Amino acid sequence: MPQFKPVVVITTAPNREEAERIGGLLLENRLAGCVQYETIRSQYVWDGELCNDEEIRIVIKTARCHYKAVEKTIVQNHSYDCPQILMQPVSRGFVPYLRWMKERLGL
Amino acid sequence: MPQFKPVVVITTAPNREEAERIGGLLLENRLAGCVQYETIRSQYVWDGELCNDEEIRIVIKTARCHYKAVEKTIVQNHSYDCPQILMQPVSRGFVPYLRWMKERLGL
Amino acid sequence: MPQFKPVVVITTAPNREEAERIGGLLLENRLAGCVQYETIRSQYVWDGELCNDEEIRIVIKTARCHYKAVEKTIVQNHSYDCPQILMQPVSRGFVPYLRWMKERLGL
Repeated sequence: MPQFKPVVVITTAPNREEAERIGGLLLENRLAGCVQYETIRSQYVWDGELCNDEEIRIVIKTARCHYKAVEKTIVQNHSYDCPQILMQPVSRGFVPYLRWMKERLGL
Repeated sequence: MPQFKPVVVITTAPNREEAERIGGLLLENRLAGCVQYETIRSQYVWDGELCNDEEIRIVIKTARCHYKAVEKTIVQNHSYDCPQILMQPVSRGFVPYLRWMKERLGL
Repeated sequence: MPQFKPVVVITTAPNREEAERIGGLLLENRLAGCVQYETIRSQYVWDGELCNDEEIRIVIKTARCHYKAVEKTIVQNHSYDCPQILMQPVSRGFVPYLRWMKERLGL
């Protein structure tokens, strides 16, 4: 049985519709305990050009053992060539919430 | 004397009033160096139903040794049955800011 | 050759103009792969007074080996006496995105 280690996976989508489609799939497939959306502005250099886009950041509360499946869901449902997907550790949390997450994630 | 390890604790509240009451208590009791608030949209499954709520995320800059007291303050002043409370590590920071945080936290 | 370890550096600026000046310098000098901006509200105690300011959070995707140069750029271009600068670890990420980041960062 895989061990439950809570993590936060962060990605961005070009609009709310795409963000909620990805988030909804993750929740439906029990790959996320909770998904949060927030509007941000991103700045980066792409093909030598400075880009400045409004985007939706998706903050995904999940388990480390689900990372590959989360990544696959994002990549397959994303309109970007190379989406930003980063996983950040969680050191500790409120035990009843973690228990709820574990159950939601089918672990 | 407890060692000072900076951490970020993240929670959410249903509205700004509740968020600022929790944040204010943490600052007053020197359990947070700084508290930040931002509006997000949360999506999750609760009792078999897909929920989609606007919430306030509270980002709390504190010390690892204060985690239990921070958690207690959140739980006691929260209207949710099971608030999301997660602690994330900080690897490094601007030394004068960390020194200021340590002093603010009474460490 | 320095090893590429992706990290997230977080700071805040008093307004969008200052935030974008700092972010633009980091991108121009290849000290950030991507910079994100979001409006937040900050609460803290400064000189014994409770402050409550609207600020811009700057989320900087960079490499651990660039931390000192990122910090220097922020401090030199910041209007605060003591800006909040914190580095948070990234445990994992989408390999094509990390490869793109590494190339952007000149590593």
